[in-house]
This record gives sequence, C-alpha cells and structure tokens, in this order.
Amino acid sequence: MEMKLPGQEEFEASSAPRNIPSGELDSNPGPGTGPSPDGPSDTESKELGVCKDPLLFIQLNELLGWPQALEWRETGSSSASLLLDMGEMPPITLSTSTHPHHRWVLFEEKLEVAAGRWSAPHVPTLALPSLQKLRSLLAEGLVLLDCPAQSLLELVEQVTRVESLSPELRGQLQALLLQRPQHYNQTTGTRPCWGSTHPRKASDNEEAPLREQYQNPLRQKLPPGAEAGTVLAGELGFLAQPLGAFVRLRDPVVLGSLTEVSLPSRFFCLLLGPPMLGKGYHEMGRAAAVLLSDPQFQWSVRRASNLHDLLAALDAFLEEVTVLPPGRWDPTARIPPPKCLPSQHKRLPSQQREIRGPSGPRLTSAEDRHRYGLHAPSQELQRTGRLFGGLIQDVRRKAPWYPSDFLDALHLQCFSAVLYIYLATVTNAITFGGLLGDATDGAQGVLESFLGTAVAGAAFCLMAGQPLTILSSTGPVLVFERLLFSFSRDYSLDYLPFRLWVGIWVATFCLVLVATEASVLVRYFTRFTEEGFCALISLIFIYDAVGKMLNLTHTYPIQKPGSSTYGCLCQYPGPGGNDSQWIRTRPKDRDDIVSMDLGLINASLLPPPECTQQGGQPRGPGCHTVPDIAFFSLLLFLTSFFFAMALKCVKTSRFFPSVVRKGLSDFSSVLAILLGCGLDAFLGLATPKLMVPREFKPTLPGRGWLVSPFGTNPWWWSVAAALPALLLSILIFMDQQITAVILNRMEYRLQKGAGFHLDLFCVAVLMLLTSVLGLPWYVSATVISLAHMDSLRRESRACAPGELPNFLGIREQRLTGLVVFILTGASIFLAPVLKFIPMPVLYGIFLYMGVAALSSIQFTKRVKLLLMPAKHQPDLLLLRHVPLTRVHLFTAIQLVCLGLLWIIKSTPAAIIFPLMLLGLVGVRKALERVFSPQELLWLDELMPEEERSIPEKGLEPEHSFSGSDSEDSELMYQPKAPEINISVN
Amino acid sequence: MEMKLPGQEEFEASSAPRNIPSGELDSNPGPGTGPSPDGPSDTESKELGVCKDPLLFIQLNELLGWPQALEWRETGSSSASLLLDMGEMPPITLSTSTHPHHRWVLFEEKLEVAAGRWSAPHVPTLALPSLQKLRSLLAEGLVLLDCPAQSLLELVEQVTRVESLSPELRGQLQALLLQRPQHYNQTTGTRPCWGSTHPRKASDNEEAPLREQYQNPLRQKLPPGAEAGTVLAGELGFLAQPLGAFVRLRDPVVLGSLTEVSLPSRFFCLLLGPPMLGKGYHEMGRAAAVLLSDPQFQWSVRRASNLHDLLAALDAFLEEVTVLPPGRWDPTARIPPPKCLPSQHKRLPSQQREIRGPSGPRLTSAEDRHRYGLHAPSQELQRTGRLFGGLIQDVRRKAPWYPSDFLDALHLQCFSAVLYIYLATVTNAITFGGLLGDATDGAQGVLESFLGTAVAGAAFCLMAGQPLTILSSTGPVLVFERLLFSFSRDYSLDYLPFRLWVGIWVATFCLVLVATEASVLVRYFTRFTEEGFCALISLIFIYDAVGKMLNLTHTYPIQKPGSSTYGCLCQYPGPGGNDSQWIRTRPKDRDDIVSMDLGLINASLLPPPECTQQGGQPRGPGCHTVPDIAFFSLLLFLTSFFFAMALKCVKTSRFFPSVVRKGLSDFSSVLAILLGCGLDAFLGLATPKLMVPREFKPTLPGRGWLVSPFGTNPWWWSVAAALPALLLSILIFMDQQITAVILNRMEYRLQKGAGFHLDLFCVAVLMLLTSVLGLPWYVSATVISLAHMDSLRRESRACAPGELPNFLGIREQRLTGLVVFILTGASIFLAPVLKFIPMPVLYGIFLYMGVAALSSIQFTKRVKLLLMPAKHQPDLLLLRHVPLTRVHLFTAIQLVCLGLLWIIKSTPAAIIFPLMLLGLVGVRKALERVFSPQELLWLDELMPEEERSIPEKGLEPEHSFSGSDSEDSELMYQPKAPEINISVN
Repeated sequence: MEMKLPGQEEFEASSAPRNIPSGELDSNPGPGTGPSPDGPSDTESKELGVCKDPLLFIQLNELLGWPQALEWRETGSSSASLLLDMGEMPPITLSTSTHPHHRWVLFEEKLEVAAGRWSAPHVPTLALPSLQKLRSLLAEGLVLLDCPAQSLLELVEQVTRVESLSPELRGQLQALLLQRPQHYNQTTGTRPCWGSTHPRKASDNEEAPLREQYQNPLRQKLPPGAEAGTVLAGELGFLAQPLGAFVRLRDPVVLGSLTEVSLPSRFFCLLLGPPMLGKGYHEMGRAAAVLLSDPQFQWSVRRASNLHDLLAALDAFLEEVTVLPPGRWDPTARIPPPKCLPSQHKRLPSQQREIRGPSGPRLTSAEDRHRYGLHAPSQELQRTGRLFGGLIQDVRRKAPWYPSDFLDALHLQCFSAVLYIYLATVTNAITFGGLLGDATDGAQGVLESFLGTAVAGAAFCLMAGQPLTILSSTGPVLVFERLLFSFSRDYSLDYLPFRLWVGIWVATFCLVLVATEASVLVRYFTRFTEEGFCALISLIFIYDAVGKMLNLTHTYPIQKPGSSTYGCLCQYPGPGGNDSQWIRTRPKDRDDIVSMDLGLINASLLPPPECTQQGGQPRGPGCHTVPDIAFFSLLLFLTSFFFAMALKCVKTSRFFPSVVRKGLSDFSSVLAILLGCGLDAFLGLATPKLMVPREFKPTLPGRGWLVSPFGTNPWWWSVAAALPALLLSILIFMDQQITAVILNRMEYRLQKGAGFHLDLFCVAVLMLLTSVLGLPWYVSATVISLAHMDSLRRESRACAPGELPNFLGIREQRLTGLVVFILTGASIFLAPVLKFIPMPVLYGIFLYMGVAALSSIQFTKRVKLLLMPAKHQPDLLLLRHVPLTRVHLFTAIQLVCLGLLWIIKSTPAAIIFPLMLLGLVGVRKALERVFSPQELLWLDELMPEEERSIPEKGLEPEHSFSGSDSEDSELMYQPKAPEINISVN
Repeated sequence: MEMKLPGQEEFEASSAPRNIPSGELDSNPGPGTGPSPDGPSDTESKELGVCKDPLLFIQLNELLGWPQALEWRETGSSSASLLLDMGEMPPITLSTSTHPHHRWVLFEEKLEVAAGRWSAPHVPTLALPSLQKLRSLLAEGLVLLDCPAQSLLELVEQVTRVESLSPELRGQLQALLLQRPQHYNQTTGTRPCWGSTHPRKASDNEEAPLREQYQNPLRQKLPPGAEAGTVLAGELGFLAQPLGAFVRLRDPVVLGSLTEVSLPSRFFCLLLGPPMLGKGYHEMGRAAAVLLSDPQFQWSVRRASNLHDLLAALDAFLEEVTVLPPGRWDPTARIPPPKCLPSQHKRLPSQQREIRGPSGPRLTSAEDRHRYGLHAPSQELQRTGRLFGGLIQDVRRKAPWYPSDFLDALHLQCFSAVLYIYLATVTNAITFGGLLGDATDGAQGVLESFLGTAVAGAAFCLMAGQPLTILSSTGPVLVFERLLFSFSRDYSLDYLPFRLWVGIWVATFCLVLVATEASVLVRYFTRFTEEGFCALISLIFIYDAVGKMLNLTHTYPIQKPGSSTYGCLCQYPGPGGNDSQWIRTRPKDRDDIVSMDLGLINASLLPPPECTQQGGQPRGPGCHTVPDIAFFSLLLFLTSFFFAMALKCVKTSRFFPSVVRKGLSDFSSVLAILLGCGLDAFLGLATPKLMVPREFKPTLPGRGWLVSPFGTNPWWWSVAAALPALLLSILIFMDQQITAVILNRMEYRLQKGAGFHLDLFCVAVLMLLTSVLGLPWYVSATVISLAHMDSLRRESRACAPGELPNFLGIREQRLTGLVVFILTGASIFLAPVLKFIPMPVLYGIFLYMGVAALSSIQFTKRVKLLLMPAKHQPDLLLLRHVPLTRVHLFTAIQLVCLGLLWIIKSTPAAIIFPLMLLGLVGVRKALERVFSPQELLWLDELMPEEERSIPEKGLEPEHSFSGSDSEDSELMYQPKAPEINISVN
C-alpha cells in the first residue's frame, strides 16, 4: 500500500458540495446507505454528491479607451503611459474612468490597481438596473450554446458574425478581441508588473498560454477540472449599437492568454457598445460574471438549450436575489464572505420539495437537528436486551475494521499528529503526575504517571471501540483520588492496598454496567448534567490551584518589616557559648528568640550550610527563612497561567501564518512550562520543584511495583472499599461515557462506528491493572482526544478564495495513539530532567486548564449574559427563541445546583460528590415541570422520553425549520463545534 | 440664564441630517457662511439642514388566520390558545405560518415571538418579487394622497370604499380593521404579555390610545414631531381579489391603538388578499415598510401628487437597491447596521450634481478630504506678514466670545466633565510629579507639580486661544528636563538657577516665534513627524519605566541561595567584642565578611533598629537587605500596568451598562493606582514610596519658592543656557503646536475658532513664571485635552434603534478648565495622603501611558502589518491604494529614523534630540523623491507645497471621490477619530 501525500485525495471531493444541483440532490443515495468496510471513501464521495459540475473560474476583462489604442486592460495609473508608448498611432482619447479587473470563484475579488493586489474576497453586490440591462442585451444579442470553436480565433470569428456589423468594423473588432489582455502578475515581487505592453497582432502563437498563467498562485487553489468563464465588457466608440454575445463552448478549450489562469474556457460573454452615461458596460459585465458564479444559474445554463432557457435561468436568479435598500446600505461596502454558504437545498422550488413524500420532511428535520448539534439517537446506543449484548455487538461491529485500523494510518499527516499528541500527553503526564504526587504524599508520582499512561493508553488503543480516544488522568478522577487519600489518612489506612480493593470493586461494578448495557443511559446525561459536571471540576481545579499557590506563602513566609526574621549567626561551641541556655529556655516564638540576649558567644556570619560543615550551629530566626521565594513563585504561577492563556488566543489573531499560530496555540501548555522553567533557571532561586525519584522505582520509598493486597489494613476494609468504589464507578461511568458521546458525535463523520460498551469494558480491565501496579487510574480524556481527532481531520485543500476548507472526515486508526503511548513509555528515561520543573509553574497550568474548561461551556456564556445589558447581547439563536428571563432562570438554577455541589464538596462528606453529580440528572428531569419542551430544546437537549413526545405534538414552526419558512440566519448552517469540554484534562 | 438639562436641545437637530432631501441640499446656506458670535446655534442648525421632514416610525401589523377570528396579531406560540378562547365562534382554521410584527425607524426590528423581545436592529433585506408584487398591487389599488380622515373610523371607511367589495364584505372588513391590534408590551416584566385578548367592537372609545402606547420605551428614542406609518398585511379567505391601498393623511392623526407607540400617523398602507402560495402579503408588507423607511422614497412620497409620482418613487428606489446573489448570501442573515449611514448626497441624480457649477466639485472634494481627516488649510494658520500679526488676529477673534465662554458653561454636563478632568489632572500631577522628583533628585516634586499645574493651568484657561486645552507636564518636556538635570550635574551646576535661565531664554525664543508667526509652519509637521515624535517619546517612557523597575532590584537585591546574605547579628561593645578588628580589616566584599571569624563576641539577634537603640551594632550582610521587596515591587508594577490596560478595554466590552463601562475606562489610571496602593497597604511591606514633604514648602530642602537668579553658578552660564533653551524651544513649539492642531481639527466642529499664536504666547509667559518659581514646565497635553473635549460633546440623545448618536459640537467655554485647576490647587492639602503611593505603581502607570500612546498611532498599525500575512490584513483604505511593498518601505524608513533617534538619545549628546525631531521634517521632505504624492496622501499627509501642486495635476480618480465613481466603502464616511495622541501625558 502506498503512502498518500497530504491532501491528495482531497481534491476529488472538494468542489462537490457547492455544485450539487438541486434537482439531482434527491436522486443521490442518501446517508441511509451506511458505511461499509470495503469502500468507505467511495461511499463518502457519493454522500457528498456524485454529480459534479466542474468549478468555474470567472474573470471580467474590461476594454478601456477609444479606437485604435484599445486594449483589454488590467492596469490603472500606469496604463496611460503604456498606451502612449505606441508612437505610430494617432493621439488617443483615454476614458478617465478606471475600472480594474474583477474575478470570481465563489466570491468576488477586485484588483486594487493602485495597490497592485487582489482585494479580499467579498460577497458581490450588484445594481438592479445593470442586471436588467444585461437581460435585455442578451435577449437581443447572440447566444451560442454548444459552440464548436476550438481556439480564440474561431471563437472571435463566430462571435463577430453579426448582421449589424460592417465588414470593416468586424475586422477592427476581431483584431481588438485577439489582443492579449494585460494580466496583473502576482508572482513578480515588488512593483506591480504588467504583461506585454505592445498589442499583439493576431499571430500564430497567440494561443499559447503565457508562463505567468501557469505560475499564477490561484491555480493551486482550483481543483483539477476547473473551467473558466470570461466576460469582456467595454465601451467602443466605433460601435453604433450595443453588441451582446453569450457563448457556451461545446468542448472547453484554453483560449490563449484570455484568462489570468490557464484553464479551459467553457463560457464566454461579450458586452460591448457605444459609450453611454455612467459605467454601464462595466456593471453589466460584473452582473454577467456574478450570474455565472451562482451555482443555480450555472447549473441551468450548462443545461440550457436555447435563449429562452438562458433568460429563464436569469429570471430565476432575479426571483431569489436579496435586496438591500439604498438608504440603509452603502452599495460600495464590501461584505465579507459568510462563514457558511447558504444551503442551496433551500432554493429548490417548493413543489419539488413537497413531492418527496412522508420521509422528506422528517429527513430535513433530522438534518437540521444535526446542524444544531443535537444528539441523534445513535444506533450504537440501542439496548439489545441480552447480557453483554452491547459488548458483543461492539466487537462484531469493530472487528472487520481491525486491519484497516492500521493500514489507514499510512499517511504523512499521522506523523505530525503523533508529535503533537505525544507532547500533549507528556505534558498531561507531568502535570497530573506532579499534582497526584502532591495530593497523595507521593503514593502516586510522575514516574507512575508516565508508566501508567503508557501502559493503559497503549492497551486501550489496541482494544478499544473508539481507538481515537486518548486515555489520561482526568480532572474528576484526580479530585476523587485526592479525597480518597485524605479519607484513608483519616482512618489511618495503608493507602495503596486500600486503593487496590477500590480498584477491584470498580472493575467489578463496571463489568456489571457493561453486562447490563447501562451505557444506553448516557442519553439521560444532557448538556445540563455535562455542564454541571464540567463546571464543578473546573471550579475545583481553579480553587485548588490558587489554594496550593497560597499555601506556598505559608511554607515560604513573606518577611514584613516588623516580623524581625533578620537575625542569623553561626555559633561555635566554645568558651562563651552557653549552648544549654538556648536549649533550656526553648523560646516559644520568634519574639522570644529575638529578645533573648545570647551574651558572650563565639560566632561567625557563615551561612547555615557552611556553618554546620565547620562544626557550628546556625542560630536565629533568619537562618531558616528563604526570602523572595513566595513572591517569585507567585510570579512564576501568574506568568505560566497568562502565557498559556495568551498563546491559546494566538490561534485567532491576525498575526503570523496559520501554521505558526496553530503551533503556538497547540503547544501553549508546553511552551508555558518551558518559559516558567527558563525563568526559574535564570534566577536560580530555590523554588519548590517537582519530586522525581533518582532511579526507575516507585515514588513511594520501599514499595515494589506490585501492591500487596492487604498491607497493614484489617481484612474487612477490602469489603468496605466497595462503598467508595461505588462512588468512583459512578464518576468513571459518567466521565467515560459523556466523553465517548462527545467523541462519537455525528459531525465528525466517523465511518467505523463507536463502541461504548467495549470502551467501558476496556476501562474496567485497565482499572484493575493499574490498581494492582499502584499506577494512576485512567479514563477517556475529552480535550486531548478531540485534539487527536482534530489533528487527523481530512479537509479539502483546494478551496476558492473566501471559502473555508470542507471537512471530509477523520483518519480513523489505532496506530497514532499506539505510537504516542510507546513514546510516552520511552520518555520515562527523561525523568531526571523533570526535577527542574518548579511546582508553581504546574499550578499555573492547572489554573489554566480549569479556566479553559470553564470558559468553553455554554453555561459560562449564559452567566456572562447576566452581566450584559440586553442591547449588547450577542445574537444567539437561543435568545431569539427563549425569553431572556427564562434563560436567566435556567442559568440561576444551574448556579444553585453548582453552589450545592460546592457546599457538599467542602464538607467531610465530600467523597460522595459523584452521587450528587448523578443527582443532576434528577434535577434536569424535574426541570420539565418548569420549562416547556421547546425551551429545554434550546437551553439544553431533550431526554429520550421528551424526544419521543415532541414529534407527536409537533414542534413549533420555528423549530422544524421546514424550508423557506425559517427566518433564522446562517447561524443554523454552522456545523456544531465541539463546544463542551466535559472534563478537565 | 437658565440651566439647560442635558440633551434638551439635542432633540432639535437630531433627526435633521438623515432627512435632508437631496434636492434641497444645494439651496441651504453652506458651511461657507461661517460662525458668528451672536447665533452659533442657529448657524449650526442651518448647517445641519433646515428642511426637516419628521422622522417616520413604521410598523407592520399582520393579519393571521381565517374569517371571524381574525386579529391583527403580534403573538406567536400563545396566540393559538388566545384565539381559541372565543368559544361562541365556529371552529377556526389557523394558518400555521407565523409572521410576527416588524418595525422600522432607521433599521428593521423583528419581534422574536418566542423570546418575547424585539430583535437587534438590522439592515432590512427584501426579496425582489415582493417589491414587484407590491408595485403591481399599488398600481391597481387605491391611492389616497392628502386624505382628510380624522380618525381610524373615517380612514377605514375611506379605504374600504372600493368597487370590488360587496357591502357585506365591506362591513366585515371594516370590523376587522377596527379591531385593536395586540401589541407586545415591553414594559411588563417577566412573561411576554399581550394586549386584550378579545376583539373589540367598533365602540366609541376605540380612538383613545392605550396606556401601553405611552409607556413604550421606544417613545423616548423618537424625537418630538415624529410621525407614524402603518402597514397592514394579511391573507383573508373571504376576499376574492387582492386589495391594496396607500393613504397619505393630510393631517397626521393618532389612529387609536393602531401603532405600538402613540404617534400621529401620516401613512397607512393596506395589503390584503386571498390566501396564496408562500407568504406573499407578509413580504409585500415588509417591502412597503422598507420603502417608507427609505429617506429618498419618503421624501418623494410626501410630495407625490398622484399614483404616477408614487410609482416613480418606487422605481427610483428599485434603481438604487443593492442586489446580493442568492448563491452567496443567505437572505435570512441579519446584517448589523453599518457604522455610518450611506451619504444620501450620493443618490442625487447625476444631472443635478453636475449643474452645480465650478465651485461644486471643489466643495465635494474638500468635504471628502475632510472625511478622511486631512488637515484643511485652516484660516487661523494664514500668515499676515506683520509682526505679531497672528497674535493680534487671535485676540481679535477670541475677544467677542469671551463672555459666552463663561455663560456657555451653565450646563449640567459641565459638572461631570469637571469631576472627570479633575481626577485625570490630579493623577497626572501625581505621576509626573513623582517621576520628575525621581529624575531630578527632588529639584522638582509632587508639591511643585500640584502648585504648577494649578497656577499654569488656571492662567492658561483664562487667557488662551483654545481654552479647552488642559496644560500638563508632557512626556517630551519630562524627558528633556531629565536630560537637562543630568547635563547640569555633569558640569556641577546649581540646577534651579541654571534652569531659570533656560526658562528665560525659552520664553524669549517663543516670543520671537509668536512675533514672526512661526506657528504657520506647523503645517509642515505631517503625520510622519507627529508619529516619529510620539513613538520616540513613548519608547523612552517604556524604556524608562522598565529601567526604573529593574533599578529597584539593585536597591533591593534578590537573595539567591548562594548569595549568603543571611548573616546578621547584633553585636554589643563588650569584653569579647573586638570592634577594632571589624574596622581594621574593612572587608572588601561580602565573601570577606562571611568568611571572617568574629571570634568571641557579646551578641544578640535583635533586629537592626532595636539593636542600635540598645547600644549595639547590627553586623553582617543580612542586616541591610530588605527581602521580598524586589519581587513585590515587580508584582505591583505589573498589576497596575495590566489592570490599567484591562480597564481601558472595558469600554468596548459587552458587559455592564455603558455608563459603568465609560467610568471604568475613563478612570483606569486612578483605579489602577488605588488598587496598587491597596495591595501595598494590605501586605504592609516597606516598598519605596512617593516622597512628599511634610509641610507646604519646596521639595528641595533649603530653597524658597523664588529661585535665585545665579546660585553658585558662574554668571556666564546664564548666557550659555541659551543653547539648551534653543533645543527646548524647538521641543515646546513642536509639542504645543502639534497638539493645538489636533485639538482644533475640523471634525470637532468648533465654533469659536482657534488661537495658535495666542496659545504659544501664553505658554511662553507661563514658562517664565514657572521657571522663576522652580515649578515644572507646562504645555498643552493631547490626551487629557481630548478627554476634556470628549466629556463636553453635545450629541443627539434621541436616536433610533441601531443608529449611533449624532455629534453636534462641543461646549466651548473656559469655566470647566478653570474649576479643574482651582480644585487641583486646593488638593495640595491632600499631599500627606500621597506618601502612601508606592513608586512601582507609578512606574506601572508610566509604562501604561507609553504603551497606550504607542498603540494609538497609525505607525504601530503598519508595523503590525509587517507581521501579518497579506490574507489576514484588515481592509484598510490605505492598503487598497498603495502597494504593500511601498507601505512596508514607508514603515521601514520610519523604523530606521526611530532607530537613529534612539541611538542619539543613548549617546551623551542626547540633549540635542529635539533638533533631530525637527530633522524628521527634512526626512519627510526627502521622501517626496521616493514616493509619489498619491502614495504620500494615503501614507501621510501632504505638505503645503504638495497640496498646492496636486489640484493642478489633478488627483487620480480614486482620490477625488467625485460622486458615484468611488468604489470605496463606508470607510470613507466615517468621521476621523482623533487617532494620534502625539504626546504622552
């Protein structure tokens, strides 16, 4: 199997969606056919629309000036002198109006003559009269459909064969049309450079495309098979009557240097006439070009068989245009391209839409619901009713794909994905390892984190239902482990053996959940639950990070002017040294020490370590204080936090090429840690550092890699461990399954299906393994898994100016994850380097994770709405459909729930918080009595029963989006972004 | 004279500019008449256009449902049940399409039925067919112009008097039209509340407006005299034929509760018909409403005398509409209102534009140039040719306004302006005073700063040509004073006497400049010079702030682990204490001290101050170090800087009501200083604080308020002082005049004229005064003066939804400034409080000022362009007209100039930097050989010679903006913001 180059196959499907003709959309095999292991890419291209008209590149060339010195111009200020170069010609009257060239692929680009560059792509705007004038000119003019011309010469001869032209005029016109247009050459650097200055005679080599045409950078943006359309417009003084011609070539042919890019031309439109008031022909030319760039018109005109069809297509276009009133909109304003092109599906005539039969509207509704990102009841989450039925189905579904899970990884893109995810995984392993070590007094640590991540991650990638998932220590599990540790300390338990039993029980419970197909219950976890879950964990992260930071100021106290921690001397046991006095009085606090008169002693000012070395004793309160550490730690903490936040934002800034921006924001944590380490190393202060064992052995001294089953604990604790294990099982189930649902969302267009039951089974097995080895526990991590999928996106590379790349799917395979975890395992030998990482930096990253997760959920957006005056609120769809007070009520209920959770978390009963998280599902159920299903649809999602009830009652018209009735804007065409990062990781 | 309430007079002129009919624009007295002291407000209102058509509020009421239960509806989901309430009626077939109400003032607002609120205002978009259908319906329908109806009843009777209606149908229709529409009531809180549910009979009290109509908050946004237009559209099953009627009432009359706001109605449009496919009547209704909201159509239809005029107006509208292609623009997308409405001037027919005669085009060009913010050759800057001619002219011009300069201040707005500017002035006085004290070793200080600001500022406000100017210590003067101080120290001069002579000379030179009318040269200071000036000073600020901060780490060194600054003991002179040894060996460095064995001593661990008190001597390197101060100072520095920056950005955020946002961002410096002080006080560390004398006397100990003329300096230094004085004069001239030009720009619409020569004269006199008293020097400060003017803006308060308030002018008076400086003088008694301000906080504000000034100039924007890929660059007009490489070249030249200036500033010859700033004018002149005038017009401004040369050669078409040819977007309509903050203050 050969390696595919990146983007090689993307050319094929890129232009398809925008050229789907409305009429043929229905005849396509729909998404219902489903993927098959044999030919996923075939199916995909079918789904995206098989009937592809080639993409059309349209160019407007304009004629400027009066007879004899006429040229197709693409130049402004410098053209005057160029035209005057031809000394042998009579004096030329130049038109003073300058209309540079325009071009279209999807959007209009205008040549900024003075600036010598193409403008940013924008939505073309037209004046209505120019469209009407164009219509009447075409109606009277020459329309050649399927013209057999094979060259520009033939084409020009055909076009000029009009009765109204005298032979002399015809010759003049032909010579004119055969002139080489002056293209602006983007590739030659500094000064805008124009093509040959001398008009060519109609010579034999005119048909040869110019080198500039091939070098044009636009060429790379157009998919193979793209065709060109050219519009020539201008005022000609010697013409008595307007001359309009529209040509569709039977076989597209490269018409010499007519177009900027050397493409076979399909359409040719000529709009000439005697000078008239205003800039009539130029605007008519633009109108013709905009018409040709419209997919619907293009589709019609490719199939038109006579003038009548052409005019009907133009009239259909006019029927659908959007009109902006002149008093409220400046026609010269450039509208940036919308984020999503309008659905051409909407432009179907209503009859065609309605004859689709009963399944039609339902499909539309489902599509629209999909656009809104509502979970569709996924096939994988249907209960089979048999014991382990879901698991067996999962295995059956995934098994045929197994070989392709490795073969599909043979692509260059996977290398960069591995590098990216490896760095992210190692960062996570360091951060969570450090924090776990902090929280469990070294029962867990960085070494355990590396080892555990490598073992669990790799095993999961080999066995799991969704191998794109990256296993990691997640926030909820970290929080629970911290609580479990303090619980075991409260009861003076030997932690690791107790933890082993918790793990055994969790594995057992999870197996029961797999057997009973409990994963189908995940559909009761609506956004309300997910957001409550995420917000609580994020807040704990933020609270802990700040708390740990402030704790450092107790360890390294700040020395205030009155606190008198100055004194320190090195006292030697000598004649005057009354050591006994020091010990006898045993000063109670610092004030005692300070006021104590030492009397005659043998002393020096050696610093404490050297003092001890020379046999002395450091004396005084100042000997043990380490100054400056507290504030420096705070600086490191803030620096790493703000630096990571700032780097994250670089992605959406205007600076740097997109590769650099993506790199900076993807590696924000790594870079922030490196910056913190660099600062720390530069100043060389004794900040607290990450604890790393010197050799490859568990962080906890004196234990082997295998945890003893009982340790010093009484045997019955192995049974009692079932209680905390029940809580942890709930947590793991929620964390794992919510993440799994997010990862398997429809908008990622996964072909190989999910495996919810299989995934949970794997997590249970790995739970057992890590408990036995005393390694951290792992579940699927949302953020890093999404990053993994994102780095494996397949996108169309060839996209027109102003168009965003099309998302084609994801490279689903097991290899990248596997390699990442093998590398992570190998990185254990890097451990000695890790001891240079200051803890405050990790706390900063910890804070960053919490803040990033918190700010990603819709709940936060709604909390922000509370602070915004109604006038300044963003135009959210939510706010269009739910009264503001109801939105605020919903937010307030969420805030109250969060407050209650926080209170429980702060009591000694904190360990039961997973149960309370589950309680959110009940609260959500109770909300049905407060809010209408319609409101819940917008504020949350629907629970399974509600989903069933709603279609019977019929959604409100606003919600069904049936065709043209919907007045919601482009917002609804936006594919749903993975907006919830459920767990902090 | 009575106090005017804020915004009282704003009602008058607010709606004027948007309703200027194109035809009458020319007959208005143009701006050329000039302001007269007697009636500035009259002139102003004339300038804004005397002929005011009333503002029109348009509402679309829609009829929903089938016979008998018909209602003008404004409700969505809840209407079904409401309509079904009427049990006595036969079953009703309800239309399933829901089309809520819409309303227009300038932009469209749609009632979001489910959310129960009006949408954000947006540009209305129409479908072309609905406009065409409307046209044909009106063409066949009833058109009543100047209808004499006095009530809704009469109106309805008139409208239904159509032949096609049978008497029975007519009665049914009349009953229907007399029904009270259900208005959405914005004032009642939580749940959307709808009007009366029962359809009213045509009773006698139907004409009485409802209370809701008066309470409608929209009412306050409409100027007095606003009229209403109502469009009623709907499908009526019992009608056989479409029924269209357009009514213009002769006398506008309140038509009961027909409109949401109780306004006299002028227009009434009825569009009814049998049910048809799609939502025809609704869209036709919207089209009619959009037509009525168009200023041009409105103007025409107010003057139309028959159907033909009406249709002609509609056709004229259609001629001008902007058309968006359906394939590239989703018609349901809501376009936010543009920042500036398109100039209706452009919609003049071309004939009308061209018959204006020779002065016409010139005026247009000047207007457009004004829009771009180019300096117009100001009348005040014409040379008279006589000695002191300019000064005399200034005094003559300003004298007649003098009484009004005090009377015009009688307005509530002036109180808040005083408070705001007072706080800003005090902040400036503290910051610059502190920094001057820092830089001159106390020769200047906070007390001098307060006193000088009060005296100089108040005197300037009383005498100056532009009394809105706020005098302050500005960045350039601060930088120069620092250089002057180190110069005098290098030559061991007595600083203040030397400075006195410099001041005397500067005053002399400035008087010479006034006498020779040198201020007219200010027109050679183009943006190139201004930006070079500003950038250099800003960079010095940034460099100094960071440098001063880092200096603190030398004063309060950071204690590294190896640096052994621990040792400190309190040694008493006693038997064992060999004091002599300590002194004899005189240890060279810390290592010596540490390694020195003290032997037998009598010691304690008392902290240094108490040790000295008890007769001992603190010994050891650790006694003199103050730990934690360095990092804490850095934290304070960063906190105040970032907090000030963040508060500055609050202004453009979506949070909080605009009053709060404005307050937070206006007082960002004050709040940042307060935060810093609070943090410092909370921790109570011994950070370096602002030095303030304990009593009211000069900061420098031992000097009186009058500076002795020679001090200890040789007499000839009083002559030599002329040299630095020459440099300072250049600096003061540039700083003062560039600021003055910015403050007197056309876009502020100042009525009372400028006084460039008079201002410079005042500065010279005050220079002398402050030098004699040893106070800081003062010139006009750009930023704070602009803030002063901004706080005195007069704006139209009544603005329609989506419209930005109109700027009407500035309250030009002397009183606010005077009161501010009197208050500043009184604040000298606050001085004891100032000693709690930590210096690092002031350094942070210092940095903030530098960064804010640097980021405000176009140069910075162009430097940023260097880092942006061309694709992501903003759509600047500049980039449309100048090739990118030329833009970069210009930026690079500026960077090189700045680098050279910086190098000079770093050498011992730093004091000559004002001369080099002047050199920028020469560089700019030389740039004419590199760049074309067109390029310089976009990149910079034109120098006087170039301005004269360009109109002869004729600007390129792109630059002359003559009417409709320009393809530049709304950007050109944006009034020029004061984008240059020339001096840091």
